[in-house]
Amino acid sequence: MPASWTGLSASHDAAHVTEADFIAALRELPLHPGAHELRDDNATIGGLTVTTDTIVECVHFLPDDPPGDIAWKLLAVNLSDLAAKGARIEGVLLNYPLSNDAWDRVFLDGLHAALDAFGCLLIGGDTVSLPANAPRVLTLTAIGRDAPAPLRSGAQAGDELWVTGTIGDAGAGLRIAQGAPGPQTLIARYRRPTPRLADGLRLAPLVHAMMDVSDGLLIDASRMAVASGLAVTVELAAIPLSADYLAFAGGDVAARLAAATAGDDYELLFALPAGGEPPSGAVAVGRFDAGSGIALTWQGASVPLPARLGFQH
Amino acid sequence: MPASWTGLSASHDAAHVTEADFIAALRELPLHPGAHELRDDNATIGGLTVTTDTIVECVHFLPDDPPGDIAWKLLAVNLSDLAAKGARIEGVLLNYPLSNDAWDRVFLDGLHAALDAFGCLLIGGDTVSLPANAPRVLTLTAIGRDAPAPLRSGAQAGDELWVTGTIGDAGAGLRIAQGAPGPQTLIARYRRPTPRLADGLRLAPLVHAMMDVSDGLLIDASRMAVASGLAVTVELAAIPLSADYLAFAGGDVAARLAAATAGDDYELLFALPAGGEPPSGAVAVGRFDAGSGIALTWQGASVPLPARLGFQH
Repeated sequence: MPASWTGLSASHDAAHVTEADFIAALRELPLHPGAHELRDDNATIGGLTVTTDTIVECVHFLPDDPPGDIAWKLLAVNLSDLAAKGARIEGVLLNYPLSNDAWDRVFLDGLHAALDAFGCLLIGGDTVSLPANAPRVLTLTAIGRDAPAPLRSGAQAGDELWVTGTIGDAGAGLRIAQGAPGPQTLIARYRRPTPRLADGLRLAPLVHAMMDVSDGLLIDASRMAVASGLAVTVELAAIPLSADYLAFAGGDVAARLAAATAGDDYELLFALPAGGEPPSGAVAVGRFDAGSGIALTWQGASVPLPARLGFQH
Repeated sequence: MPASWTGLSASHDAAHVTEADFIAALRELPLHPGAHELRDDNATIGGLTVTTDTIVECVHFLPDDPPGDIAWKLLAVNLSDLAAKGARIEGVLLNYPLSNDAWDRVFLDGLHAALDAFGCLLIGGDTVSLPANAPRVLTLTAIGRDAPAPLRSGAQAGDELWVTGTIGDAGAGLRIAQGAPGPQTLIARYRRPTPRLADGLRLAPLVHAMMDVSDGLLIDASRMAVASGLAVTVELAAIPLSADYLAFAGGDVAARLAAATAGDDYELLFALPAGGEPPSGAVAVGRFDAGSGIALTWQGASVPLPARLGFQH
């Protein structure tokens, strides 16, 4: 799923333009002060916080995914970015490609249910036609207010890294949806993620930095560390796993690495001062220190980094 | 080019979902008070005005159009909606499909030039990958402040209908770009429209209703009349044509009908109290009265309506 613009290192060659190249070039454009140098998932403007995500058929969802689930996910992934700022929802804009058939009606029914579920209002948008057989491209922009949470760049040396909920369920759900044997309940965690809006409101005044886990706990923890100019160490044994996930994959190092690199969790990842009040429903999974880079441990012993830390676009 | 959501009547059948059906269904969703019931190109939220437009390859632009022109147009069509509210530009968000090649760099160079030309700042956005050979779909969301202009629904019986600039140049430019003989200068009017931001600021305190001409003067005048619950009469002989347009198409009834239904003008269309101070660079082209519907005249004599009033999505 799309995180908004975040800076990643990448290889270069003259003809190929990676996302990292493109975002680096975007930073050369005239930027609004509320753009936070394009280093956060949210922009700040006139007391509002704004985030936008685009999802693409065959990239972020499958052509035969239920339209109602796609509507839910489009809304949920954007509201998850508002949750990470402790924002209250003001409303959303939708940019929608008409199918001109029943798909449109089923999508709208699903969007209606999702808006109701989150107490969210529609502000506006645009509808377009696509050429025949073009993959659907849907954009949603979410606007929030009263967003007191700091950026992902605010972590301090000595802070602990915490995460809400359980990790890896959505990644397992995707594999089960694709045919792997496992608890069918995990599929819903992939298709219908829950933005942690109430947790975000509660955590915002307590944290030094917060973001949502969209691309994988390890890559997102690494991004928070980079943005904050710190090193981060993640204790794999502490990563919270659901009973369903344990039944699907077990709880050994490989299973926890898979959970921590799968993405689509939409839990909140945050830096909390050491000894801070531990929020219920969240667990400490690591620690920030002076330095740079990400390191992994298993019950305190160093573990090599996996080949990839999460989903990259 | 996309106008944002506006209500149009349309035929119905059970399986086919038209844009009008879809927008009618959207109005059944929980709407933000600033959505203006999805009857304007702009939404209002916390003192800001927000508009969004998506453009699609092979629908709104051609695959071999210069990327810099596409960037310009994507920005200009959105800023034109801000101009219609007399807004000052706060900034824009971009949802961009990576090509991963030189197209991206040329697009960004063009976007940079366009941002500079309008004094506009980038606030944020999102980048995605598309499946191979998928048509590009680009979304831009523009945010403005200090937007005093009334909605398109504010016209009053007895108001005159005015328009800035000249009409039909972009439509002629498209035909010339496709091979019709005519002044090459008109192509720039199609590819690089100019949002009337300064006119919008100047006109906002004077007008009863204002919108931009994106889909054609006649259809947009008709939309303003519908939104205001009035009839509108347009005098074709009064429609302002450029010397280039006159050289391309002449100035007879057919040429003026073509100009008034072509769209892509991005001039400002507004309702001004009769006897109001005539703004320089704008001309009166019609009048609002009690009733409903649109009527055309040529030097005062009734003229039948053309088969279509403008571009419909």
